[in-house]
Amino acid sequence: MKDQYAMTDTMTKEDVTAMILSAKKQAGMTWESIAEKIGMSPVWTHSAAMGMNAFPPEKAKLMVSVMGLPQGAEALLAESPTKIWTQAVPTDPCIYRFYEIVGVYGPTLKALIQEKFGDGIMSAIDFDMSVTRVEHPKGDRVKVEMSGKYLGYNSW
Amino acid sequence: MKDQYAMTDTMTKEDVTAMILSAKKQAGMTWESIAEKIGMSPVWTHSAAMGMNAFPPEKAKLMVSVMGLPQGAEALLAESPTKIWTQAVPTDPCIYRFYEIVGVYGPTLKALIQEKFGDGIMSAIDFDMSVTRVEHPKGDRVKVEMSGKYLGYNSW
Amino acid sequence: MKDQYAMTDTMTKEDVTAMILSAKKQAGMTWESIAEKIGMSPVWTHSAAMGMNAFPPEKAKLMVSVMGLPQGAEALLAESPTKIWTQAVPTDPCIYRFYEIVGVYGPTLKALIQEKFGDGIMSAIDFDMSVTRVEHPKGDRVKVEMSGKYLGYNSW
Amino acid sequence: MKDQYAMTDTMTKEDVTAMILSAKKQAGMTWESIAEKIGMSPVWTHSAAMGMNAFPPEKAKLMVSVMGLPQGAEALLAESPTKIWTQAVPTDPCIYRFYEIVGVYGPTLKALIQEKFGDGIMSAIDFDMSVTRVEHPKGDRVKVEMSGKYLGYNSW
Amino acid sequence: MKDQYAMTDTMTKEDVTAMILSAKKQAGMTWESIAEKIGMSPVWTHSAAMGMNAFPPEKAKLMVSVMGLPQGAEALLAESPTKIWTQAVPTDPCIYRFYEIVGVYGPTLKALIQEKFGDGIMSAIDFDMSVTRVEHPKGDRVKVEMSGKYLGYNSW
Amino acid sequence: MKDQYAMTDTMTKEDVTAMILSAKKQAGMTWESIAEKIGMSPVWTHSAAMGMNAFPPEKAKLMVSVMGLPQGAEALLAESPTKIWTQAVPTDPCIYRFYEIVGVYGPTLKALIQEKFGDGIMSAIDFDMSVTRVEHPKGDRVKVEMSGKYLGYNSW
Amino acid sequence: MKDQYAMTDTMTKEDVTAMILSAKKQAGMTWESIAEKIGMSPVWTHSAAMGMNAFPPEKAKLMVSVMGLPQGAEALLAESPTKIWTQAVPTDPCIYRFYEIVGVYGPTLKALIQEKFGDGIMSAIDFDMSVTRVEHPKGDRVKVEMSGKYLGYNSW
Amino acid sequence: MKDQYAMTDTMTKEDVTAMILSAKKQAGMTWESIAEKIGMSPVWTHSAAMGMNAFPPEKAKLMVSVMGLPQGAEALLAESPTKIWTQAVPTDPCIYRFYEIVGVYGPTLKALIQEKFGDGIMSAIDFDMSVTRVEHPKGDRVKVEMSGKYLGYNSW
Amino acid sequence: MKDQYAMTDTMTKEDVTAMILSAKKQAGMTWESIAEKIGMSPVWTHSAAMGMNAFPPEKAKLMVSVMGLPQGAEALLAESPTKIWTQAVPTDPCIYRFYEIVGVYGPTLKALIQEKFGDGIMSAIDFDMSVTRVEHPKGDRVKVEMSGKYLGYNSW
Amino acid sequence: MKDQYAMTDTMTKEDVTAMILSAKKQAGMTWESIAEKIGMSPVWTHSAAMGMNAFPPEKAKLMVSVMGLPQGAEALLAESPTKIWTQAVPTDPCIYRFYEIVGVYGPTLKALIQEKFGDGIMSAIDFDMSVTRVEHPKGDRVKVEMSGKYLGYNSW
Repeated sequence: MKDQYAMTDTMTKEDVTAMILSAKKQAGMTWESIAEKIGMSPVWTHSAAMGMNAFPPEKAKLMVSVMGLPQGAEALLAESPTKIWTQAVPTDPCIYRFYEIVGVYGPTLKALIQEKFGDGIMSAIDFDMSVTRVEHPKGDRVKVEMSGKYLGYNSW
Repeated sequence: MKDQYAMTDTMTKEDVTAMILSAKKQAGMTWESIAEKIGMSPVWTHSAAMGMNAFPPEKAKLMVSVMGLPQGAEALLAESPTKIWTQAVPTDPCIYRFYEIVGVYGPTLKALIQEKFGDGIMSAIDFDMSVTRVEHPKGDRVKVEMSGKYLGYNSW
Repeated sequence: MKDQYAMTDTMTKEDVTAMILSAKKQAGMTWESIAEKIGMSPVWTHSAAMGMNAFPPEKAKLMVSVMGLPQGAEALLAESPTKIWTQAVPTDPCIYRFYEIVGVYGPTLKALIQEKFGDGIMSAIDFDMSVTRVEHPKGDRVKVEMSGKYLGYNSW
Repeated sequence: MKDQYAMTDTMTKEDVTAMILSAKKQAGMTWESIAEKIGMSPVWTHSAAMGMNAFPPEKAKLMVSVMGLPQGAEALLAESPTKIWTQAVPTDPCIYRFYEIVGVYGPTLKALIQEKFGDGIMSAIDFDMSVTRVEHPKGDRVKVEMSGKYLGYNSW
Repeated sequence: MKDQYAMTDTMTKEDVTAMILSAKKQAGMTWESIAEKIGMSPVWTHSAAMGMNAFPPEKAKLMVSVMGLPQGAEALLAESPTKIWTQAVPTDPCIYRFYEIVGVYGPTLKALIQEKFGDGIMSAIDFDMSVTRVEHPKGDRVKVEMSGKYLGYNSW
Repeated sequence: MKDQYAMTDTMTKEDVTAMILSAKKQAGMTWESIAEKIGMSPVWTHSAAMGMNAFPPEKAKLMVSVMGLPQGAEALLAESPTKIWTQAVPTDPCIYRFYEIVGVYGPTLKALIQEKFGDGIMSAIDFDMSVTRVEHPKGDRVKVEMSGKYLGYNSW
Repeated sequence: MKDQYAMTDTMTKEDVTAMILSAKKQAGMTWESIAEKIGMSPVWTHSAAMGMNAFPPEKAKLMVSVMGLPQGAEALLAESPTKIWTQAVPTDPCIYRFYEIVGVYGPTLKALIQEKFGDGIMSAIDFDMSVTRVEHPKGDRVKVEMSGKYLGYNSW
Repeated sequence: MKDQYAMTDTMTKEDVTAMILSAKKQAGMTWESIAEKIGMSPVWTHSAAMGMNAFPPEKAKLMVSVMGLPQGAEALLAESPTKIWTQAVPTDPCIYRFYEIVGVYGPTLKALIQEKFGDGIMSAIDFDMSVTRVEHPKGDRVKVEMSGKYLGYNSW
Repeated sequence: MKDQYAMTDTMTKEDVTAMILSAKKQAGMTWESIAEKIGMSPVWTHSAAMGMNAFPPEKAKLMVSVMGLPQGAEALLAESPTKIWTQAVPTDPCIYRFYEIVGVYGPTLKALIQEKFGDGIMSAIDFDMSVTRVEHPKGDRVKVEMSGKYLGYNSW
Repeated sequence: MKDQYAMTDTMTKEDVTAMILSAKKQAGMTWESIAEKIGMSPVWTHSAAMGMNAFPPEKAKLMVSVMGLPQGAEALLAESPTKIWTQAVPTDPCIYRFYEIVGVYGPTLKALIQEKFGDGIMSAIDFDMSVTRVEHPKGDRVKVEMSGKYLGYNSW
């Protein structure tokens, strides 16, 4: 079909992600510095650049100029993504460790949220996260901070 | 077999967990207060009480006295558990949200850990975590802080 | 262990559900009438009676008196449940049809929520639902109405 | 083989979906407005445009003219689709929440359908659905209404 | 709990199925003859006796008298079952062959239903089935006949 | 490799299926009429055209002439296929309903086959099937008839 | 229920299997010798004793007398079993190796059966098998011989 | 990348398998005859040609000349394959029947191997197999013979 | 059934494992010391005590006397076990790390075994293993040594 | 997109792996010799060459010169990989045997690590491994040695 029907905007979110990764490598930038340039956090910036979150319009415009992306990229950056991950149990050791933490400490997180708030959950939508390096004499530590709005179950 | 061969110490880790939950309910205690009484954090205390972590000997002794547990419980609290969780994708909404966060932000956590530390992971063993309630005008927020030792991949 | 250590409150949420079902059958009540007696909706009442939602304290008290439950049931009704369902794809035809609707129309629900609200989701926590019978000349119809708070993705 | 045997109509339902999405973006249309132009509901229009439902012949003709599609698209829009979805548990948070609702409230939907109708199900075939935005002081709400014909089990 | 709270009607659908199987064996009856006695087909009778379909009230009464079941069984036979089967791919060779037929001929059944009726399905709810033995010189054959109401997809 | 080593017969069974579907659409034929032209049943004809059954040599020759297929297609139509289906639980609603019937009535089919024949199965290999439309005042019905040779278990 | 309704024949196929294993151990018999006493092969005898095949009536009678089983066992041995195995991929190394052989050589078995017979399969129902020990200087070998009736695909 | 860096030997094991199948079809050879020409058994020859076993060097050379393969094929035929099969439960009916035999008779094979040899397994590596056609008045039979070295479990 | 038919030797391998664990705890023994007393390695001793390997007769006798087990235990210790593990992906962090090593380094182990030996595998049956503690200034290390007989693929 | 936006560095880690394999084959090198040339172990060298570990910068430079790789390969060799393996249960027999060892001996490894170190695990990150050939009169043996840092669980 592709040859019979001319399509002018066939760029996809995946294409834009590839362009960002390529531009970042050529310019020797870090996620930290890109995030700073567009005035967002590094966690959110990486996630949105990977196509797992949508850029607010003005941030999409900024991202296009910071990374030197082509015209059509702006609208794609601002589009809502469909979030798909393909392995129920992730295999990469760095990601698996977080899955393991949810397995081991999931019931604990639930118990303490209920103790402090009542019957409800921490939102994964109205949510933010950061990663920082903490120096430590026995070996530096990774610090991950998550904050999500508490949502109480409705009864009606 | 059970009737033919007398066994004197058939209490299990699961029994001790049930006793702790029962004693906690009768005494109207919170995990926060139990944790304070044994001088540990609430996250760790709940997790160890659920049988997902082992109590150091002196903490096991303290726990037995704080909760009024029978004699045999002390050794069981100190025993290394086998950590089993039974659903690759957890169903409880409160726990699922954390699984979803790992799915959506897993590659981001990996990218930022590598940017800040090099090729490696955050340990889920040399690890601690806390849950706190943060007041917020648009609705209070759940704050989860994790800290794990950075472990760099070996090359040999 | 059960014989060595006396436990006074070993009633569980499952026991209370069984008692409710038994009392309902003996009294010939409907979920509609039980819901009316405790001043809640039938959907929520059934779900909470099945142990998939927690009763607010005053509703727990009411439920105990309406259904003639024993003393200890009140606290159990008010306890936060762990929501577990055991089949990724449900087999019962009545429940499967709803799973099928999510499979077929899931991307449509997502597209229209984004068109009407922006990048976000419908909460399944701050949520309510009803089921009604609608007369129709070609065969009566089941009407299911869901309402959940819109939650927009955070960017930070 | 493709080079040895000339095929004149190799356009597929997927191609037509791609053309619709492209035309919609270029014209800045919404699903709401497309639906109105062809005299169908937005839910059904999106679902059929995605290739999950077949257009009745006259609606297929209308759709081709509204979206400026090529000649061969009309027959493809009217073709019965094979409905395939690829994840038993959907990962996109917006779609997952509906899966979660089926998990948590599935037995409740079943119990109330039986209470109101008898032993049977709500059809997912003779079925319609709508999504609307409801204003609310504490945050607007997504309202989803489903209506399906009741089908009673046969006994023979 | 069982000892603290007297329950008078703890018979379950599973218990009634066990009683039917036991009575059938002791009386040396066949499903064919039981079905004839209650004026239903053998397929439906076996399926309902197994707890996979609900008996209409008068058939439940008849079944209780034909099989010599206790009083409480009548209401249980008339109760709507939750239909659960536990293996995505059945292992018993006799049942597997039918699963294999659906795998091999499923797309064919779909194509011919669409050719003869339009875009829709055969109902598995408004449905009946029979099994008969057909004599054949090269070995007798099993004949299975299914009949289900055609349901056309709605467009709205 | 494809460029270094000339292969003359790279047509596959999938290619022939695509050609048949394309020729059928252009000629406006039905499976019923194609089946009649080659003197086979519609169920078998569709299944073999889809590559799930092998054409006997003379039927392959006939099919090539009826559908106007290229020379190499004849041998491919006669080749034994490897039957692969990719979802343990089919998602298309029309096919799923048959899977559901196997789930709900599988044990019944087994029980009645044993009652009528002894310990054995219905063959899915020495097997045939038909689909017919049966008029009915409350809505026409799909009739599916299967016939398979009874195979008794060997004991040795 | 069990206490309210007296059941006289609650022995199951599993009970009979347990009795056979117990009697075999006490008498120090081998499967080889049991098979010889009832005039069947060891493979079939073990399989039927495990409840995976049904004993013909006269063999059931013989088995009861050879193993000293109680009265009710005879009918149970002759009953058609439902064959269930619980792991898609078996874990026991001795059984896994056969699964591996099917994985590695399955397409080869299919190709050679087709080359020698045409389009069809080897029956697993009209089937027999033996296991023998073959002496060999580099280590004795296990010889497994299977024989099943060839079943050609029907075309109709 | 492919265009920037010239690779001279990009033929793969899959390519060689395709060439063998193509040459076999053009020459009208059978696996039986190919096997005879290279002095190996048909089972092993097919399996190695499919890329599931490695050819010993002299057999690789012979195969290249018998099938008229290009130069580079010899080394590829001699390379150790990675054996991958993609469905835990095979769907093709001819292969499934062997899977079913492992499910039904797996514990029997294990029991008899232990009775005849002790605690151990039949090797699937030091292993050979044949398929033969056995004439039979009631329909010819497929005979499959497997022979594998017995390996006893080590204790240390 | 259990009450109707007296069984004298109902002790199982699981019972013996439980007795060993209980005796070990009461006597304060280590696996190291038990292994030494019966003249076997700690890895094998633990594995056999867990019921995953069979004790040679004289070791079974020794084990019974070292651990003070009842009479019937000796035969059970010597019985061949069926090795079942229940999770495709183990969850316990200590065991998961070994699963991860197989995932990450599996292809490497295969490549080096082929480089050093030819086309074949390391036996998991004619196999032994040890675990030792190695002191190290930056933290002691776990050393695991496996040794298995090389088995070359047969060609025939 | 690829044609509209010029990308200069589109080489990937997979491309570099393919180049290494190709160069190794053409030069007739072994992993042993490549490892020696870059001063690393064969296990680590193969694993890093396969893209499952990152080369330290100076080793990446060495690898490029030893294997004659193009300029861009150096940076790619030094990049952190995402470690993905695609089968929960590996099928290749050589790799499966190691999976089986983890299944059978996993609990043993855990028990002995705890006996020798306390409650913790062997790291799979601060980890090294070797494979050696050990001569043996009854057939040479594969020796695999793993060493990983012990990590004790934190309590806090």
